[in-house]
Amino acid sequence: MRKPLILQSDFGTADGAVSAMYGVAYGVDEDLLISDLTHEIPQYDIWEASYRLIQTVSYWPKGSVFVSVVDPGVGSTRRSIVVKTKGGQYIVSPDNGTLTHIKRITGLEEARVIDESVNRLPNSGESYTFHGRDIYAYTGARLASGVISFEEVGPEVETQSVIELPVVEATYDGEKVSGTIDVLDVRFGSLWTNISRELFLKLGVKHGNRVEISIENETRTLYKNILVYAKSFADVYVGEPLVYVNSLDCMAVAINQGSFARAYNIGTGNKWRITIRKAPRIIYED
Amino acid sequence: MRKPLILQSDFGTADGAVSAMYGVAYGVDEDLLISDLTHEIPQYDIWEASYRLIQTVSYWPKGSVFVSVVDPGVGSTRRSIVVKTKGGQYIVSPDNGTLTHIKRITGLEEARVIDESVNRLPNSGESYTFHGRDIYAYTGARLASGVISFEEVGPEVETQSVIELPVVEATYDGEKVSGTIDVLDVRFGSLWTNISRELFLKLGVKHGNRVEISIENETRTLYKNILVYAKSFADVYVGEPLVYVNSLDCMAVAINQGSFARAYNIGTGNKWRITIRKAPRIIYED
Amino acid sequence: MRKPLILQSDFGTADGAVSAMYGVAYGVDEDLLISDLTHEIPQYDIWEASYRLIQTVSYWPKGSVFVSVVDPGVGSTRRSIVVKTKGGQYIVSPDNGTLTHIKRITGLEEARVIDESVNRLPNSGESYTFHGRDIYAYTGARLASGVISFEEVGPEVETQSVIELPVVEATYDGEKVSGTIDVLDVRFGSLWTNISRELFLKLGVKHGNRVEISIENETRTLYKNILVYAKSFADVYVGEPLVYVNSLDCMAVAINQGSFARAYNIGTGNKWRITIRKAPRIIYED
Repeated sequence: MRKPLILQSDFGTADGAVSAMYGVAYGVDEDLLISDLTHEIPQYDIWEASYRLIQTVSYWPKGSVFVSVVDPGVGSTRRSIVVKTKGGQYIVSPDNGTLTHIKRITGLEEARVIDESVNRLPNSGESYTFHGRDIYAYTGARLASGVISFEEVGPEVETQSVIELPVVEATYDGEKVSGTIDVLDVRFGSLWTNISRELFLKLGVKHGNRVEISIENETRTLYKNILVYAKSFADVYVGEPLVYVNSLDCMAVAINQGSFARAYNIGTGNKWRITIRKAPRIIYED
Repeated sequence: MRKPLILQSDFGTADGAVSAMYGVAYGVDEDLLISDLTHEIPQYDIWEASYRLIQTVSYWPKGSVFVSVVDPGVGSTRRSIVVKTKGGQYIVSPDNGTLTHIKRITGLEEARVIDESVNRLPNSGESYTFHGRDIYAYTGARLASGVISFEEVGPEVETQSVIELPVVEATYDGEKVSGTIDVLDVRFGSLWTNISRELFLKLGVKHGNRVEISIENETRTLYKNILVYAKSFADVYVGEPLVYVNSLDCMAVAINQGSFARAYNIGTGNKWRITIRKAPRIIYED
Repeated sequence: MRKPLILQSDFGTADGAVSAMYGVAYGVDEDLLISDLTHEIPQYDIWEASYRLIQTVSYWPKGSVFVSVVDPGVGSTRRSIVVKTKGGQYIVSPDNGTLTHIKRITGLEEARVIDESVNRLPNSGESYTFHGRDIYAYTGARLASGVISFEEVGPEVETQSVIELPVVEATYDGEKVSGTIDVLDVRFGSLWTNISRELFLKLGVKHGNRVEISIENETRTLYKNILVYAKSFADVYVGEPLVYVNSLDCMAVAINQGSFARAYNIGTGNKWRITIRKAPRIIYED
């Protein structure tokens, strides 16, 4: 059976770095099934790397191996690890917070530190800046193809030792749900929040109802308005904003065929807070 | 035999959406041969999606399955269809005009509406915004791998019911050919017209002859000049404009190693008209 | 055994050109292992195409076939060739300088001119502008899959006849090393020079030592400063510049988590000269 190996990085695809990783991996086994998650993670943005993994990993078969290389600490003492998720996929990555969402949401079954004395591309010892090729792609390919077992990656470590970035939990206080804007749907400019559909539904709203959204960045309110909770974009006019359930089963905010993020200069991260409550006043609809 | 599955969308590749589609498809059959047409269709630009298909589909083996997801109407009542082209390839797409060029130029052999009660990724029922993953990639993978036959996609519909965007036909009036600028060769800034080589040759011009080109956008003329009809870019100086036959066997206009579109602010669509006639006056050549 | 076919071009991935090449190649043999080096070579930039090959080719298994199409002379009398490198990989390319670095650094074992009377996609004779699809991808696929042998590509030519772009050699004069800035690590803004680690070490510096860097573009000095020679980025502060050995075993200059090229407006090519000497004055460190 052919085993998927999926690569993610902040390298871009304008130079030969990603192709060198492919070459090293196919050199291990030409029967691998290699593809890309994305190589357009903003440079050094560990948070977004973590988010793109949670967006994707569970849609791949058990046994698939992901390699994620967003690695501002390359050459430092940060650990290189391989985890097995509770869903049965493997992820090879520097242990720098890249696994935050997978650890919290999917859960980790087991974690191992890569033994670089064994799992390193032969004759790659003099370059210290491209572990993505020399260690991560190489180890991922060997694991995916069965050249090494998970045990042969290196010594097991406690899954709770795997590093997490700080996360603000979404909350419900009886009348409103609050959370953070975790990430943008880059091309469409939608805001993806950490508020799950389940939490949101505690407000008792149904498709077609209206809710009040407010978005704050520390002390400033950047947006406050009444929006419809729609099943999908087609339920609202072109140019109309909406709240909907995104493909991760969390709440998202968008403008149908426009960019909400650009329209209101909305960014992402723990400082970008969003609050949703049932529309507090009567709406006169015709 | 391994079956090609080719994906196109307006999703970009900066997030995990395309990789989730790959994961779903490999989950159906790890023996698929998956690759990308492009994911950089401008958002919601059905016309360009249609054009990129006609540019590509016929170069793929019979039995190849294309999945195209440019879908401003996701969640509406627009149909989801699979067509078989007269060339023997299949295309899975929302029925929103994406098949305009394929239907007109290649021709459709048969069309079927996707029966979503069967052809939908299990347990994907609560998200209404990512049919690309949950229905199109899933159905395309099942069809390409032979898990379902074309008949099992869903009920047959008349091929003439497949929706077409309005198209202006190129014409020849005895002394000039007229048509529209359909699309740009994005990176090189060439203009690709809907005037076929065959129609153009009715002007009786040969390689090396000169022709008069005029380009209009409604009431404004944006360009009018005498150009050489060249076999290829190498026949003219660097920086010189030319008329040539593009890789779709239609007439195109370019500047050798420059961008014609940027130089003269030319756009695309039915309002962008181009007229070509034999150079009407004597050219003094040395 | 499945044979890798790796594609490079300046086509971008926004239209169907690359996918048409994939289709033609899979049409030759569905068992090929096709992937991309990059399609984002700046238009007509033969130098960068040459550099991306040297950055990548040696990481692929023997017998891998590369197709590189950066071809400002398409349709001219420039030759189309296939070379076998001393490392055992093949490269299909217009003979326009694309093989400069591979020829100089890796070395060529053998070179053959493509016989286009045999090695051309059937029925592609009327379009003269897309040799990437009609000749290069087609020939590369036939060679990789074993449909034709290397001999069947066409007549052998002297490897020294393969065209090289002018290259300035890096030098050591007893107290400093001098070279050119060959290319940028695009996304991270690092400068990659043609000064090999071996030449650099003649300065007698060790990791942690300081060196004086000066960068000139013809008569102007754009940068002159003392930097640390670091093993990797993690050895310096965020925002601190450093000199290091890149993944090609040559000297590179960067700012940790910043863009050196953008910070000082540095470009690439033979006019961009860099000189490195041992730090000439005492540094007071605390």
